[in-house]
Amino acid sequence: MSLNEYRYFDPNPKVRETAFALYKSVKDLPIICPHGHVDPKILATNEPFPNPSELLIIPDHYIFRMFYSQGIDLKKLGIPTIDGSEVEKDPRKIWKIFADNYYLFPGTPTGAWMNHVLTEVFEIEDKLNSNTANSIYDAIQAKLNTPEFKPRTLFEKFNIEVLNTTDGASDSLEYHKQIRESGWDGRVVPCFRPDAAVNILAADWKKEIEKLSEVSSIKINNFSSFINAIENRREFFKSMGAVSTDQGVFSSYTHRLSESEADAIFKRALNGEATKEDNKLFTANMLMEMARMSIDDGLVMQIHPGSFRNHNSVIFNQNGLDKGCDIPVQTEYTNNLHELLNTYGNNTKLKLIVFTLDESNYARELAPLAGHYPAMKLGPAWWFHDSIEGMTRYRQMVTGTAGFYNTVGFNDDTRAFLSIPARHDVARRVDSNYLAGLVEKHLIDKEEAVKLSYELANGLVKKAYNL
Amino acid sequence: MSLNEYRYFDPNPKVRETAFALYKSVKDLPIICPHGHVDPKILATNEPFPNPSELLIIPDHYIFRMFYSQGIDLKKLGIPTIDGSEVEKDPRKIWKIFADNYYLFPGTPTGAWMNHVLTEVFEIEDKLNSNTANSIYDAIQAKLNTPEFKPRTLFEKFNIEVLNTTDGASDSLEYHKQIRESGWDGRVVPCFRPDAAVNILAADWKKEIEKLSEVSSIKINNFSSFINAIENRREFFKSMGAVSTDQGVFSSYTHRLSESEADAIFKRALNGEATKEDNKLFTANMLMEMARMSIDDGLVMQIHPGSFRNHNSVIFNQNGLDKGCDIPVQTEYTNNLHELLNTYGNNTKLKLIVFTLDESNYARELAPLAGHYPAMKLGPAWWFHDSIEGMTRYRQMVTGTAGFYNTVGFNDDTRAFLSIPARHDVARRVDSNYLAGLVEKHLIDKEEAVKLSYELANGLVKKAYNL
Amino acid sequence: MSLNEYRYFDPNPKVRETAFALYKSVKDLPIICPHGHVDPKILATNEPFPNPSELLIIPDHYIFRMFYSQGIDLKKLGIPTIDGSEVEKDPRKIWKIFADNYYLFPGTPTGAWMNHVLTEVFEIEDKLNSNTANSIYDAIQAKLNTPEFKPRTLFEKFNIEVLNTTDGASDSLEYHKQIRESGWDGRVVPCFRPDAAVNILAADWKKEIEKLSEVSSIKINNFSSFINAIENRREFFKSMGAVSTDQGVFSSYTHRLSESEADAIFKRALNGEATKEDNKLFTANMLMEMARMSIDDGLVMQIHPGSFRNHNSVIFNQNGLDKGCDIPVQTEYTNNLHELLNTYGNNTKLKLIVFTLDESNYARELAPLAGHYPAMKLGPAWWFHDSIEGMTRYRQMVTGTAGFYNTVGFNDDTRAFLSIPARHDVARRVDSNYLAGLVEKHLIDKEEAVKLSYELANGLVKKAYNL
Repeated sequence: MSLNEYRYFDPNPKVRETAFALYKSVKDLPIICPHGHVDPKILATNEPFPNPSELLIIPDHYIFRMFYSQGIDLKKLGIPTIDGSEVEKDPRKIWKIFADNYYLFPGTPTGAWMNHVLTEVFEIEDKLNSNTANSIYDAIQAKLNTPEFKPRTLFEKFNIEVLNTTDGASDSLEYHKQIRESGWDGRVVPCFRPDAAVNILAADWKKEIEKLSEVSSIKINNFSSFINAIENRREFFKSMGAVSTDQGVFSSYTHRLSESEADAIFKRALNGEATKEDNKLFTANMLMEMARMSIDDGLVMQIHPGSFRNHNSVIFNQNGLDKGCDIPVQTEYTNNLHELLNTYGNNTKLKLIVFTLDESNYARELAPLAGHYPAMKLGPAWWFHDSIEGMTRYRQMVTGTAGFYNTVGFNDDTRAFLSIPARHDVARRVDSNYLAGLVEKHLIDKEEAVKLSYELANGLVKKAYNL
Repeated sequence: MSLNEYRYFDPNPKVRETAFALYKSVKDLPIICPHGHVDPKILATNEPFPNPSELLIIPDHYIFRMFYSQGIDLKKLGIPTIDGSEVEKDPRKIWKIFADNYYLFPGTPTGAWMNHVLTEVFEIEDKLNSNTANSIYDAIQAKLNTPEFKPRTLFEKFNIEVLNTTDGASDSLEYHKQIRESGWDGRVVPCFRPDAAVNILAADWKKEIEKLSEVSSIKINNFSSFINAIENRREFFKSMGAVSTDQGVFSSYTHRLSESEADAIFKRALNGEATKEDNKLFTANMLMEMARMSIDDGLVMQIHPGSFRNHNSVIFNQNGLDKGCDIPVQTEYTNNLHELLNTYGNNTKLKLIVFTLDESNYARELAPLAGHYPAMKLGPAWWFHDSIEGMTRYRQMVTGTAGFYNTVGFNDDTRAFLSIPARHDVARRVDSNYLAGLVEKHLIDKEEAVKLSYELANGLVKKAYNL
Repeated sequence: MSLNEYRYFDPNPKVRETAFALYKSVKDLPIICPHGHVDPKILATNEPFPNPSELLIIPDHYIFRMFYSQGIDLKKLGIPTIDGSEVEKDPRKIWKIFADNYYLFPGTPTGAWMNHVLTEVFEIEDKLNSNTANSIYDAIQAKLNTPEFKPRTLFEKFNIEVLNTTDGASDSLEYHKQIRESGWDGRVVPCFRPDAAVNILAADWKKEIEKLSEVSSIKINNFSSFINAIENRREFFKSMGAVSTDQGVFSSYTHRLSESEADAIFKRALNGEATKEDNKLFTANMLMEMARMSIDDGLVMQIHPGSFRNHNSVIFNQNGLDKGCDIPVQTEYTNNLHELLNTYGNNTKLKLIVFTLDESNYARELAPLAGHYPAMKLGPAWWFHDSIEGMTRYRQMVTGTAGFYNTVGFNDDTRAFLSIPARHDVARRVDSNYLAGLVEKHLIDKEEAVKLSYELANGLVKKAYNL
C-alpha cells in the first residue's frame, strides 16, 4: 500500500496539477489545532503509547462504531464498561478483529486517515487485512517502543504549532500546568467548556457546581455567584493560555432572562426541581452571558448545536459517553440566534464561531448570517462532515454568500492524536482541489488561489482564534 | 437513436474507462428486485401485453404526471376514472400524445428508462416523436404479439433472479399460488404490507379488518386478536416465500403503548371514533410491534416515511391512488426512531431497512444512525431520487459516515415491468461511475472497487434480504 | 484583468467545448427580465449616473453587506441613515474602501458580476485593488460622463427586450407613465407587489390602505372594499403593461377564510388590534384571493416565502430596508400550498411561479409539486442561490423530477442596473455547462441540448410570463 501523491484531487489533469501545486505551497505549513479533544495527559506525562490497539482502536469511536454497526460486540473490541464487567484485554485479538473488518472503511474519511497513519506515520508497506494483521501489529509495536514515537517527539515531528484541548469549567488544568512547568516548549492550551455546569438537568450537575465553587473559591448559591464563578474560571483558563470557549448545546436558541428569572431557575435547579423548559431557557440565557463575557475578556466563543447525545441508551449505560452514539438532529439558526446577534452581533469585539451538523443550514442560514454580522464566523465542515465530499460541499454551499473570509480554516476535532496530520493533510488537499477547480473554471486567478490556500491552511485560523 | 455504451459516466477519460470496466464486471449479473410493485397477475396468467399504451403509459404515473403537469388532461391519456366516466380508449391516440410530448423527458430518469425500453427491449431505431409515433407503435405492437414478449419469457430474458411484489395483509396471494403451482420456476415472492390494516382512519379500514379476520380465521375484536391475525398473516406470507415486510408511514415516530392503551385506541377505531392522535400513536406502536415480530419470524422490516399521499384531491377523487400526486414532506428520524432503536436496534436478529424521500436526512440523520446501530440499514435512493444525480448524491452524502456495508443495494420500486432492466442498468452505471471516481481520486484501489461493484449490484441486497 | 471566454465551464475539454458551443448559440439573445428591482426613475429621467460609488456600491447590498461582515462601518461606505445622521459623502473615499477590500469577493457571484461590469461594460483592464483604485475610478467617471453611458443607451446596448420592475399596490407608476409618454420604445413594465397592503402588522399598513383608497377611488372600510381596490389596482397595472404580480411572504401557508372571518380580521387591523395569528390567516387568505384574481385577469402569480426580513434590527433602525439583513429560514410547501393547489392548481388558467430560499425543498417538495400540478412552475435559483454552484445545484436537484419545462428560465432579481448583462451571462453559461454535461454523459443529444439552451435563455421565460 502506498498513498498516491495526487490523492483526493479531481482526475481532470489540469485541475489535478493546479491542485497539486497549491497543495505543495501549504503542505509543510505548521499544523494549528484550534479545536480538539486530545487528552493533555498524553503530552504531560509523555509516556510511550502502550500498544497498537490501545492507541488506535479503543479510544476512537469513529473506528469502533463502524464495527458495532456491523454487529461486532464492543466488548470484543476492548471498549471499557462502566460497571467494570469484563472486556477483551488482549490487544492482539482486538487488532485481529480490526484487520479482519478493515474492508468496511474504503470511501470513508476514517479509512483515509487510518491509511495515512499506517503508511506515513508507521511506514507500513502492506495493506491491512487478516493476513497481515500480525506482522503489522508487530511493526507498529516495535516503533512504539522507540523514543521517536513518544508523544512529544511526535508532536514536534507533526509540526504542531498549537494544540487546543477541551476542558470542563471546574477542571484543575493540572496536565496543562505540568506541561508548562516541564520546560517543554510545545504549545498546548486549554479551551473552556462549561457544558457540565450549564446543563441543569444532568445527573451530575450539582456535583459540578460544588466543584466549581471549590476551584473558584466562590460560594455558588444563586445565579449571580454562579456567573461570578464562571467569569473567574474563564480568567483562570485565560491565564493558562486559553484563547477560546466551546459550548455544545442541543438548540442554538438564545434569549436574555431577567436577573430574577435566571435566579429562580437556578434555585429550582439547586433544589432538583428544574424542568425541561427551565433548562432550555437557562441555556438560552447562558449563551447570551457567554457572548457578553467574550466581549469582556476576549475569549473566542464557539457553539455547536444539534447533536442528540447518547442516542443509544444501551451503549451509554454500558460504556458511557462518546461511543459513537451522538446523532445529529435538524437545527435552526436564523430565529434562534436572532436575539444574541441583535444584542452582540454588531460588536466587532465579539468573535462567535458557529458550527453545524445540519448541512441544509450552510447555504440557507449560516452563510447569510456570517455574510452579514461582523461578529459571526462559520466553523468548518466538522465531525460527520469532514469527509472529502463533506468539506467540498461546505465550500460549494458557503462560498457564494459568505466568501472565504467569513470562515475560519480547518480544525481536526479529534481525540485520536496520531490522526492529526492525516486530517489536516486531507483538509489541505480538499481545499487545494476546490481552489484549483475555481482556477480552472476561471472564477479566480492563480495569484488569488495561492493567497487563499495560505489563508485556508493557516491565515484564517490564526486570525479567528487570535493565535 | 442508439444508447451510447459510456452513457451516464463522467466524461473524464480515465474515470469513464474505469467506470466502464467496473460496469462490465456487473452488467450481466442477475437482477434482484427486493422491493417493487409489479402486479403478480401478469406473471401468473402470462397473457401477452395488449398494446404499447396499456403497457407503457397508462399504468406508469412517472410518465403521465409529467404530461399532466403540462396541462394535458388525464382522460385523454386513458387513465381510468373511479366513476367509470369516459376516457380515451384508442391506444394509438394515447400513444400519439405520448410521442408529441416526449420532448419533456430529456434529463429525467423516466426518459432514460424509456429510451432503454424502446431501444434495448423493443429494438426501436428511430427517435420517438410526432413523426415516428405510428411506426414505432406498430413495431412495438408486432413484438407484443410474439411469444418472445410474453411476461415470463421477458422475466427470463431480463435475468431476474427474484422479484418481490407488494401485497396487502389480507391478500389471498392467489396469483403467487398460481405461479408456484404452474410449474414455472421464476421466483416471484410476496412482501407483507399491512398499511391498510394499520391506518385506522382510512375509510376502508373496517372492511380490511373484516377481510383480515376472514383470511386468518381469527376473530378480530380487540388489539390482541388483531396482533394475532397480523402474526398469522406474516407466517402465511413467509410460507409463500416472503422475506420482508414494508410499511409506508407519514411519520417515522415510534412509541410503545401499553396493552390497554393500544386496546382502547383499537376499540375507538372499531367504533369509528379514532382521532388523528390515536392514529399517530397506533402507528407508532405498530412499528414497535412489527420490529418485535421481525425479530421473532425473521422477516426483514422496511419502512418509508415522509409522503403526503394523494395531495391532489381532485385527481384522487377522479382517478384514485398512485396517480403521481404523492408529494414528499420534511422527515425526521433521530427523535422518531429513538424508542424503536433503543428497544430493538442493538439486536442483530432485526434487520430494519429505512428509506427516505428527504435527502437532507442522508448525511445528517440516516448515515449516522445506520453507521452505529447494528439492526439498521439504509435503503437506496428511491422514488423521486433514483435519478442519476439522485443516486450519486446518495453515495456522496452517505458513504463518508455509513460506508457501503450499511447500505443494501438497489431496488427498482417499480410497477412498470418493462423498466426493470433499464432501472437496474442505470443504477449499476451510476454505482460504477461513483466507484470509478473514488479510484481515480485514489480513495480506493481497483481491487476494492471490483469487490464493491459486486456488493452494490448483488452481494449487499442478497445479504440484507436473506436471499 | 480579462475574462476568459471559457469561464464557469467544466474544465473537461469535451464538456467545455460543448458548453461553449451551446453558450454561443444563446449569448446574443435578447435579455428578458421578468422579475427585478431596478428603479424605473432611472429610465424615466435618463439622467447620467453620478459617480462610480453611487452607481455600483451604495445601492447594492450584495456588495456592502460583505464589507459590513468584515467589520467595516456602513457609514464609511456612504449608506444613508434614516435619521439623516452623517455618512461619508466623498465617493472617491468610498471607492477606495471598496478597492482595498475587493479581495473578499473571489469565488462569489458578486465578484463575478462586478468583474464583468468593470471589464465588459467599462472596459477596465487593470485588476481592482488599492493601487488601481484611483485610476479605475477616473476611468469609470469619464465613461459615465459620456452619452453612451446614459441609462436608456445602456438599456439598448444591453439588448434588454423587457424589464419588469417591482411596484407597490398604491404606486402611481408615474415613472412608467413618463417612459411610455416619452416616445422611447424600451419596454419597461411594472409588477404588482401588494406586500405593504397585505402585511396588516406593519407600522405603515394603515397609511398604505389610505393611499390605496385614494389611488383606486374606492373607500376601503372592510374586506370586500379592500379586495375591490386590489382588483382595481391590478387592472391599472395591467393597463400599464404589467404581466405579473409578486408576493413576499414569511410562510407559504394558504387557507381560505370565510368572508366574515376575513372581514373581522380586517376590521381588527383597522383598529390596530390585529394579532400575529390574524396576520398569518389574513396572508393565507390573500394568497387564495390573489390566485383567484390571477385566473380572472391573467396576471402571472409569483410568490417567494422564507425570508426573515430585517433580521438585524440595529441596521434596520439605522439604515432601513434592503440592507443585506434579510436571512432565509426553513420553508415548507407541501402542506402549506395544499389548499391553494387543491382549489386552483388544476386550473390551466393559473400560472403560479414559486421561489424558494431553502434549497432542501428543490428535490423534496418543489420539483414533485411542479412535476404534477399544471398551474405551478418553479422559479429559478435566486437571491442567495444564483451563484454558479447554486444554479448548478438547482438543475441537479430539480430536473430529474420536474424536467426543464416546469421551470421558467432565469431572472436577475437585481436593483443593480449595470449588473443585468453580467447576471444573465453567468446564468447562460451555467445552463450551457449543465446541458453540456448531460450531452457528454449521453443523457441528452446535441439537438436536444440546442433546443433546451434556447428554452432556458428565452423560450420558457416568454411562455411563463406571457411575453
